[in-house]
Amino acid sequence: MDPVAELITSYFELNGHIIDELDDGGTEPSPLEFMRYVARNTPFVVRRGASTWPAVQNWSVPFLKKTLVEHTVNVAVTPNGFADAPTPGPDGDVIFAKPWEEDQAFPEFLDYVVKQEKGQLPKGAETRYAQTQNDNLRHEYASVFAHVHKDIPFARIALQREPEAINLWIGNSHSVTAMHRDNYENIYVQVLGQKHFVLLPPLCQPCVNEQPLQQYNYKRSSDSLTMEKEELDSEARQEGDGGDNTVPFAVWDPDAPDDNTTTYSSLAEPMRVTLNPGDMLYLPAMWYHKVSQSASEQGICVAVNYWAIITTDNFC
Amino acid sequence: MDPVAELITSYFELNGHIIDELDDGGTEPSPLEFMRYVARNTPFVVRRGASTWPAVQNWSVPFLKKTLVEHTVNVAVTPNGFADAPTPGPDGDVIFAKPWEEDQAFPEFLDYVVKQEKGQLPKGAETRYAQTQNDNLRHEYASVFAHVHKDIPFARIALQREPEAINLWIGNSHSVTAMHRDNYENIYVQVLGQKHFVLLPPLCQPCVNEQPLQQYNYKRSSDSLTMEKEELDSEARQEGDGGDNTVPFAVWDPDAPDDNTTTYSSLAEPMRVTLNPGDMLYLPAMWYHKVSQSASEQGICVAVNYWAIITTDNFC
Repeated sequence: MDPVAELITSYFELNGHIIDELDDGGTEPSPLEFMRYVARNTPFVVRRGASTWPAVQNWSVPFLKKTLVEHTVNVAVTPNGFADAPTPGPDGDVIFAKPWEEDQAFPEFLDYVVKQEKGQLPKGAETRYAQTQNDNLRHEYASVFAHVHKDIPFARIALQREPEAINLWIGNSHSVTAMHRDNYENIYVQVLGQKHFVLLPPLCQPCVNEQPLQQYNYKRSSDSLTMEKEELDSEARQEGDGGDNTVPFAVWDPDAPDDNTTTYSSLAEPMRVTLNPGDMLYLPAMWYHKVSQSASEQGICVAVNYWAIITTDNFC
Repeated sequence: MDPVAELITSYFELNGHIIDELDDGGTEPSPLEFMRYVARNTPFVVRRGASTWPAVQNWSVPFLKKTLVEHTVNVAVTPNGFADAPTPGPDGDVIFAKPWEEDQAFPEFLDYVVKQEKGQLPKGAETRYAQTQNDNLRHEYASVFAHVHKDIPFARIALQREPEAINLWIGNSHSVTAMHRDNYENIYVQVLGQKHFVLLPPLCQPCVNEQPLQQYNYKRSSDSLTMEKEELDSEARQEGDGGDNTVPFAVWDPDAPDDNTTTYSSLAEPMRVTLNPGDMLYLPAMWYHKVSQSASEQGICVAVNYWAIITTDNFC
């Protein structure tokens, strides 16, 4: 048997594809228990682990609107909800589409998200998602940072690191995050609505069909969003990489498993888990994840995540 | 740059090739501190970590001889000290030579080891090494097991596993263990003499030039050791693997770095560490290790090691 196929098959035979759930009482793991998961590079969920957080108990559309009434937030805008995703480009090829980013007044942004979720906007209206991943909760949204925990103690103690970034995500069910991976240990906390994760371990790299995709940006021009090829900055051009503006990205989608396959795609057993308000997920560094969302009854999906960079990560 | 070369080079840039030494007071790590090393797949030494063990305080040649006077032990015999090692075979090819194993009365065995170390045997005399790795300290040598700790608490608690095997090693400076790797988390404790480790992380696999080697056994015939090709058992023969009795084994030797190289061998930065009596070494699973030894003044080298199998090891 092909050794790559054997590795992937053995992984799922040994580990299954059900995500561990720590006991149901909302008890966080100890640092040592957490470190065992880090060592095994294995995700887990703590149901209701954040259920007592003020954000989980108190946030709502009216509350956020009132609290952030004076705020301006950076919003990612796409025609279809796919930001940073493989998308058919102007020439029909699959390209990597990055969102248009613009600042919006928070109350207007939130009204838009809710209206779209409730079907009060025309079909085909643009999708808006507050998804800056630049430690926004300690900066852009600092005024609500006190409503979440300032770190995840079991992770801080185990990893001996403060969170590198704490990010707030606000959107609706129209936004989907395409399957990708990050070099961060990641803890997600769901606040409102649901997030639906599809996960694959790093060894599934041969399954996901990473392709070099040309990078395009959406731009707002008058009333529509158009796509423009990303210009290389002059530095990159001088490095003489032949004008290559591609980024490697997975084009196999576990939700359309018969398209864009590699020889190994059929061996992947995607692990699926839905986070409800108050649930926590540990997503290990370098795990592939695709994330879609469902809105709360009030029409929004809100989550917070904590990133820690592990500099001396496994090199095996 | 070749991505394999880049990976190996970055590893050593980031991690160096000096083995961590935990503080000098002989204090063992906590389970959490240990688990951080497991998660990073990184070795460490605790100098004097076992200095209070009865074995470290009391064992000597006369003590062992007296205590084990009635014992019979399994001894690995080779003409040159290289057991389980790449060796020139009868036809000049490099083959994998396994030792002759025989039972010997312990006092005679120990006398032989000491005499050879002290130069009281003819040059070229066979080398004897008590190196069974079958949990011998809890079986063959059960009568001295009480002189060592029955497990390594920080590892047992962290890994949630009792030791799979505890092995006693008794030999002299004529024995060298060729570079290989095991799928065990491994804690070595030096009791008498010194062990000199040369370590390489698992990602150095491209450097070590693993080759399929024919397996040969030394056999004692009258007064000499001869080499015989290992016969496949009938089961293996029926599986129709064409009579292949090879085993993959590293033929690059970090102590002869210009021989048997691959393209990547020169990028490996072997990590060297010597254990003195009472020192402990954590050797992570799948690390390559070559081990040579120096004898104590009384002419022997004695060590104990603890193995734990990690079934759900990293698959990345």
